[in-house]
Amino acid sequence: MTEIAPPIDYQTEPSRYRHWRLEFDGDVAYLIMDVDQAGGMGDYELKLNSYDLGVDIELNDAVQRLRFEHPEVRAVVIKSGKDNVFCAGANIRMLGKATHQQKVNFCKFTNETRLAIEDASENSRQTYICAVNGNAAGGGYELALAADHIMLVDDRRSAVALPETPLLAVLPGTGELTRVTDKRKVRRDRADVFCSIEEGVRGTRALDWRLVDEVVPNSKWKDAVAARAHEIAARSDRPKDAKGIRLNPIERKIEADRVAYSHVDVEVDRARGLATVTVRGPGESVPASVDAAHQLGDKFWPLTVARELEDAILHLRSNEREIGVVLFRTDGNAQGVLAHDDFLARANGDWLMREIHHYLKRVLKRIDVTAKSFIALIEPGSCFAGTLAELAFAADRSLMLIGTREGDNRKPAAITLGEANFGFYPMGNGLMRLQTRFLGEPETLDTLKGKIGAAIEGEEAAELGLVTTAYEDFDWDDELRILLEERTSFSPDAMTGMEANLRFAGPETMETKIFGRLTAWQNWIFQRPNAIGEQGALKLYGSGVSPTFAKERV
Amino acid sequence: MTEIAPPIDYQTEPSRYRHWRLEFDGDVAYLIMDVDQAGGMGDYELKLNSYDLGVDIELNDAVQRLRFEHPEVRAVVIKSGKDNVFCAGANIRMLGKATHQQKVNFCKFTNETRLAIEDASENSRQTYICAVNGNAAGGGYELALAADHIMLVDDRRSAVALPETPLLAVLPGTGELTRVTDKRKVRRDRADVFCSIEEGVRGTRALDWRLVDEVVPNSKWKDAVAARAHEIAARSDRPKDAKGIRLNPIERKIEADRVAYSHVDVEVDRARGLATVTVRGPGESVPASVDAAHQLGDKFWPLTVARELEDAILHLRSNEREIGVVLFRTDGNAQGVLAHDDFLARANGDWLMREIHHYLKRVLKRIDVTAKSFIALIEPGSCFAGTLAELAFAADRSLMLIGTREGDNRKPAAITLGEANFGFYPMGNGLMRLQTRFLGEPETLDTLKGKIGAAIEGEEAAELGLVTTAYEDFDWDDELRILLEERTSFSPDAMTGMEANLRFAGPETMETKIFGRLTAWQNWIFQRPNAIGEQGALKLYGSGVSPTFAKERV
Repeated sequence: MTEIAPPIDYQTEPSRYRHWRLEFDGDVAYLIMDVDQAGGMGDYELKLNSYDLGVDIELNDAVQRLRFEHPEVRAVVIKSGKDNVFCAGANIRMLGKATHQQKVNFCKFTNETRLAIEDASENSRQTYICAVNGNAAGGGYELALAADHIMLVDDRRSAVALPETPLLAVLPGTGELTRVTDKRKVRRDRADVFCSIEEGVRGTRALDWRLVDEVVPNSKWKDAVAARAHEIAARSDRPKDAKGIRLNPIERKIEADRVAYSHVDVEVDRARGLATVTVRGPGESVPASVDAAHQLGDKFWPLTVARELEDAILHLRSNEREIGVVLFRTDGNAQGVLAHDDFLARANGDWLMREIHHYLKRVLKRIDVTAKSFIALIEPGSCFAGTLAELAFAADRSLMLIGTREGDNRKPAAITLGEANFGFYPMGNGLMRLQTRFLGEPETLDTLKGKIGAAIEGEEAAELGLVTTAYEDFDWDDELRILLEERTSFSPDAMTGMEANLRFAGPETMETKIFGRLTAWQNWIFQRPNAIGEQGALKLYGSGVSPTFAKERV
Repeated sequence: MTEIAPPIDYQTEPSRYRHWRLEFDGDVAYLIMDVDQAGGMGDYELKLNSYDLGVDIELNDAVQRLRFEHPEVRAVVIKSGKDNVFCAGANIRMLGKATHQQKVNFCKFTNETRLAIEDASENSRQTYICAVNGNAAGGGYELALAADHIMLVDDRRSAVALPETPLLAVLPGTGELTRVTDKRKVRRDRADVFCSIEEGVRGTRALDWRLVDEVVPNSKWKDAVAARAHEIAARSDRPKDAKGIRLNPIERKIEADRVAYSHVDVEVDRARGLATVTVRGPGESVPASVDAAHQLGDKFWPLTVARELEDAILHLRSNEREIGVVLFRTDGNAQGVLAHDDFLARANGDWLMREIHHYLKRVLKRIDVTAKSFIALIEPGSCFAGTLAELAFAADRSLMLIGTREGDNRKPAAITLGEANFGFYPMGNGLMRLQTRFLGEPETLDTLKGKIGAAIEGEEAAELGLVTTAYEDFDWDDELRILLEERTSFSPDAMTGMEANLRFAGPETMETKIFGRLTAWQNWIFQRPNAIGEQGALKLYGSGVSPTFAKERV
């Protein structure tokens, strides 16, 4: 059944890459895909630059490091290190053997990585170019779609293709369909034709149909790619002489029921189906200067927390599949969190502070699309302030203690809003979490802005709508117990569907369409016998036997 | 397996209703739900005003007739004819026994009916009020959500509730979740709580949470509802003294492989998995006056075509489930179609012409969300003009003949654009079909506006992007055969998912979120063992046995 067994580790570094190479040419980096056929996570061969989760974990790491470790890089060219093939997409044997959960989570992480590439182009001004030197099929073309500029070699052979539907009876579902219609704005009937042609589209037709941005003869290919990359690099506002920081291995201790990081703890109670993620506020005051923050590097608290929280969320997704409910707690000093937020905001012109800000944004977005119920517990000693208050606003519910606990002399629990809550961290729908929350009463946002910096205690927070409910100490334990018993008793699937819909009120963007609409259709298809049954296309691919489809249209 | 066997007939009329009553009080109509427990379409009892497709077919008919037959009605009050219960939602035994296809299509039709109610409030100014006199649970509350104004009796008992998730392990998925977040704009954590409480929310809390618009004590209930209805009716612009037209039974002859209407033909080729829908243009010129059009009543060509095409589409969905590809043909005179469009446009102040316009819009929207591949064939003798050209723009692909056919002395095939194509028929995403089509090249729209009224022949139509491909006569048969063989060979599920994504490029609305996002999640859940397995909640409901859920979060 399960071909790829947990634990899956999302941490890596270039010296350990098996599938990617980085080469540098001044302000341009080449991110070269050269998948090790024998380097898959399971019992399959990664032929023709096809990929599995392991390949994507390295890609994600490379995209991240380019932003933090290489401020001098202003354009990144993704290309293939193999002759005659760019990338054959997700490995089909892997998909055929994967469980439903694995397929869904593989696609989710892949989507996030593609969006991180787009985020780098847009917000780090480290612009991605895709140099398609060979066939780019399925997820291979999806990788190209994530770039800002797609170049295709015109060698009468190389094509871009989305053959998932004719070949595998599934969708080009890791963002491809949505990017084709909403990013490339390909005419719908052309998109329909394109998605039906196994062999794809090449040359000037690919250009005419807006599937690529540029078609280059083979003879001029290498020079043209380099010239385009340097031209695009020249438009970036990234600093010329800055020194990157090193992303060292994160501090992490993995035990049976616990993962302990320097500022994040994950505790798992499998019997109850619960995990608790505790995030600790900064232990030290803000650095004396932006230079000092650079000196701290990955020990600078906002960056440390971003990295650790991200790893914790990914760990829970992949390695704690039967945990349905995650409690968020924080521990520390609210003013320390706000001071760090302000530091980031004031230094926003600095490339590194900008990176940290957008990284925190991406980590919070990972929470928004994680299929677990999140419940924030706001208690004395916590620091749900500014950036960390977003954890409460990202949660499906939040419970807050009114006043203090008997025998506990800490100050009453409070939420402290900061500027960060009103502009730093848009969700996938383009709105801040508070905007989404108060879609029906935008005037509340003005009230809340007036309370920036103030410690908002339980009753007031409930009154303002910042938390779901506030309880006195003598009710707390019972109410929480009842809530958790109830939540963990519900159908996990119904929770996933409900949360995916309730979390994203209001406008939709390409990003929410990918996660909300396209993903849901793909998940549906990933369960259908026509795809995964014994006679289904995904199961029979490569066997020489044609699939047999039930003809009923649903 | 199949509890409700085809054929399902979507035609009915008030004298045949088993579940609804209409009462009139001047400018207010009462649409009273009083479901006949023994009147279900399958082997289950429709207790507590629960409903199945048959109940919804009557509701759809009533909503439609109120618009056409009762121009004097300016407000419609939906209420229950039973004591102490408003509506228990979709019948759970029915859902438990239904096939996947039946569940999905039942929900789709129900969604369309709810949207038709909202369309009546918005565009016919026949405003719906829901008087919740008893518990409104699940689809019962969904019915209320479709109204513009929800009144709830405050009798310490009546509540609104969405118990699907805790009770049945499925979503409140026929629009409820999206209406809660996007129409009622309920705060997400309150929505989360609301969707987790089997017993729902009543009284002032329901009002505070924006779940209802008004709470009325039992003692004042009847008067308050009537007063509110008349007050809302007074704001309408519907005419006071107009006379409705009668919607007579449509002319329809059903044969084994054919349904013949007066202006629409459906021919089915089951061996090839194909159906052909042919729509005939008007046989007569436009009426001499708007009064004359009223005299024609349901024989007025645009209304006839709307009714027949709608029935044909619904028939194909429910009764020809294994037909995956539908060809659209038209037959007649393009200028006759455009003349009728212009007639409707010029008379837009007239209530009946307005109704016909919006009805055509709704029928075209049914095509957009139908899970069949639509292919338009534009040949000599066809009349893809104005309103009927929308069939080509709604199709996934369109093929056009260049010039004429040997031995056929009719004029070359042409598309003729009219004003209707630029403003009459928005899709669910709020854009016209041509706007959606040319999202990536809006300047093309200006070019096309300059061609209104001109017969655009094959090569030019292909050049302009109005059709997918144009072929000469000697290529036509082969190209069409290849296309159809290919299309019918693909996985029906992959086609459904692909079309649902490619048809709706660009912006999303509540409507597209319901069909695209929420529906896809519900369809996914409708296949999961936690809902429909032998130990699933939907199967075990009412048995006294608790469901057993697989705990894995996907």
